[in-house]
Amino acid sequence: MNLTEASAKPLRVALLGAGNVGSQVARILLDDAAALGSRAGAPLELVGIAVRSLDTDRGTALPQELFTTDAESLVENADIVIELMGGIEPARSLILRAIEHGATVVSGNKALFAQDGPALYEKADAAGVQLSYEAAVAGAIPILRPIRDSLSGDRITRVLGIVNGTTNYILDQMDATGAQFADALRAAQELGYAEADPTADVEGHDAAAKAAILASLSFHTRFALENVYCEGITQVTADDIAAARADGYVIKLLAIAELLSDEAGDPGVSVRVHPTLLPRDHPLAAVHGAFNAVFVEAENAGELMFYGQGAGGTPTASAVLGDVVSAARRMMLGGPGRTETTTGHVPARSIDTVSTSYCIGLDVADQPGVLARIATIFADNAVSIETMRQSIHQPGPGAEGTAELRIVTHRATEASLAATVKQVAALPVINSVTSVLRVEGI
Amino acid sequence: MNLTEASAKPLRVALLGAGNVGSQVARILLDDAAALGSRAGAPLELVGIAVRSLDTDRGTALPQELFTTDAESLVENADIVIELMGGIEPARSLILRAIEHGATVVSGNKALFAQDGPALYEKADAAGVQLSYEAAVAGAIPILRPIRDSLSGDRITRVLGIVNGTTNYILDQMDATGAQFADALRAAQELGYAEADPTADVEGHDAAAKAAILASLSFHTRFALENVYCEGITQVTADDIAAARADGYVIKLLAIAELLSDEAGDPGVSVRVHPTLLPRDHPLAAVHGAFNAVFVEAENAGELMFYGQGAGGTPTASAVLGDVVSAARRMMLGGPGRTETTTGHVPARSIDTVSTSYCIGLDVADQPGVLARIATIFADNAVSIETMRQSIHQPGPGAEGTAELRIVTHRATEASLAATVKQVAALPVINSVTSVLRVEGI
Repeated sequence: MNLTEASAKPLRVALLGAGNVGSQVARILLDDAAALGSRAGAPLELVGIAVRSLDTDRGTALPQELFTTDAESLVENADIVIELMGGIEPARSLILRAIEHGATVVSGNKALFAQDGPALYEKADAAGVQLSYEAAVAGAIPILRPIRDSLSGDRITRVLGIVNGTTNYILDQMDATGAQFADALRAAQELGYAEADPTADVEGHDAAAKAAILASLSFHTRFALENVYCEGITQVTADDIAAARADGYVIKLLAIAELLSDEAGDPGVSVRVHPTLLPRDHPLAAVHGAFNAVFVEAENAGELMFYGQGAGGTPTASAVLGDVVSAARRMMLGGPGRTETTTGHVPARSIDTVSTSYCIGLDVADQPGVLARIATIFADNAVSIETMRQSIHQPGPGAEGTAELRIVTHRATEASLAATVKQVAALPVINSVTSVLRVEGI
Repeated sequence: MNLTEASAKPLRVALLGAGNVGSQVARILLDDAAALGSRAGAPLELVGIAVRSLDTDRGTALPQELFTTDAESLVENADIVIELMGGIEPARSLILRAIEHGATVVSGNKALFAQDGPALYEKADAAGVQLSYEAAVAGAIPILRPIRDSLSGDRITRVLGIVNGTTNYILDQMDATGAQFADALRAAQELGYAEADPTADVEGHDAAAKAAILASLSFHTRFALENVYCEGITQVTADDIAAARADGYVIKLLAIAELLSDEAGDPGVSVRVHPTLLPRDHPLAAVHGAFNAVFVEAENAGELMFYGQGAGGTPTASAVLGDVVSAARRMMLGGPGRTETTTGHVPARSIDTVSTSYCIGLDVADQPGVLARIATIFADNAVSIETMRQSIHQPGPGAEGTAELRIVTHRATEASLAATVKQVAALPVINSVTSVLRVEGI
């Protein structure tokens, strides 16, 4: 079986909703059609975008003829339905209609899946259609698929998640600057990290919906919003944060789902959202700004953490399209579906042609003009210097002084770096090249 | 369609290899049979374990009648084949035979998949069988499935991985203690983190195999071991580490797969393993000891990180069994396969019955006997104190002194904590309860 875009009939994709995430999903489906199609095994054809009203000005980025207010007809004529409307209705009815019509469904709707997830995926299983909603929790971070598939042979015991970027940004600002909650909230609103009405975020409701979804998947049991204890961050004061800091803690709003035994030894699950002190050396303590992370403890796997952007149109669109392409692969093969694809054709590059940054350590004579001579060699080889740091070793009486130089370069090729180092090493004022190491992450 | 263990025929599972990981996989298949079967949709019956010789003493943990030296017969009579022998042959031939017989294959063989992965999964696709090998890279960390499925709608631009626990342990020790490489290696060997012959780890060969696999999946293109530039950590000195530290860097052995353009603007991929300086505030810099982590940069998702245990029998068995259960789900339904399961029946626990640690802040009169009275109330309510810290506010002349108390408790129920706080607040020596916050991660 060798599927190519040429031989395969396109899969008809219907998009419900054209908000922040939906409009990015549409853009990527159109812009990256070739790459997505070759990975899916068939072209993904965006056949329509259902919106509430055609009058809204959506700019000129997306073809106007794709928009429609008739969501039901769109759903009935699609192979894949992407639901990004949010809220319970009409999202729920449209998803059920898609399932009835045998369409694959991808959603990012946390409110709906926190309330009705298990009922919806039982219906999808019964109809033999695929249903996925990775984007509903923690934006771009792959977390639902790892819990559902990768950890399906293990027993999860605890999930601790920073799943709301707004509150993490606010708490992180309070921790970094000593600000009070109200001031940090205002700053977050000015930067677009918090909405004008921040209730759903700061009262923990958004995190509670995600906690219910995480708990249901982690413990293979249906948990709904009413099972989640929820406490927001509005009562957290600058004093709380300062006192926590003094004790070696940081305060985070965590979504927690935890397997525990009662006094009789019977298992149960606690699902809760509340401001929580975490030791500063805990991996979640290092999650700053609007980033999200989910920390999972499993009996065999031990501790795992998944970290990334938890919100935003483009990152969340990545999660939606991951679900779409994965589902399309399985649709195309009927059976288990395609696994890896080797449809790309990028060549492997030899290390000689690769540019990276380097850190070069030099033991040099402490004489006037040395720095200039070294810098000239770097410039002659087109190796640009990012930082140069010199530490002088005090010589004993009568001895000549030496200095240690540490040079970090901008990206340069292996070849030009090697030429540079060779020429520098040959300078009479150089005692030795003490180290040459590559640098990443700058 | 409602699959239960009672109605479904067992899936016959053959295990090839009974080493560190294989023996844990066998143990869990036997011990957790009920839970695994209910998630898979059919019982998973371990029908045999192929080993090189029956004479080896394997203790008494696994039933002796499962062991056989006839791997070929075992493979030909299995629905699912788990290959954990390692090395190229006979693993490769046995996997091909399993594919020919229509069996689902799960492997943890990094050497084989670095060399022949794309050829093997093309054969599996052509035969319509499932093939997965999550355990081959980064042990328990779900990384191959997220790259293959969750990021299939995105464009990965760079992968930076700490994928070898031995070298990370050695470098982390050198960074923490100032030790030389040889001493840190010896310590790692004594603790079982490094083998007697550490070549494959310290020369970067193990990481290079994983880099080839990560690159192939990330860029949908076949990269083999000969495409990987490889430099180990044997040349890294204590001076290198100290100088890096002084500059705000840490040295890590990274497996890097990076999309880049040449001078003509044509894309290519660099796959390489070498000691690398990373800024200390980079998420990978906080990966200590023998832990692994993979940092992924994608066009839409942005930065993602996956963190966890990269080796060890039990953690790696978790990854193997995740592949087994996921594959079994799809086999049982033929089509897209089961997604989530709600076969668990653990009840939701109310917050009132949940035990967590608390941190209580109290503003108290600075008088003798106050601490004892507070501690008595905690004891009467069976709330055990982990730490108690007091800071005294110097009063102005003539004013009464006050103190701030911060008490962190062991796990206590919400109900007993509430009773404690109520009684403490009623003490005449208490000016106010300044905060009550929950603590996790201690």
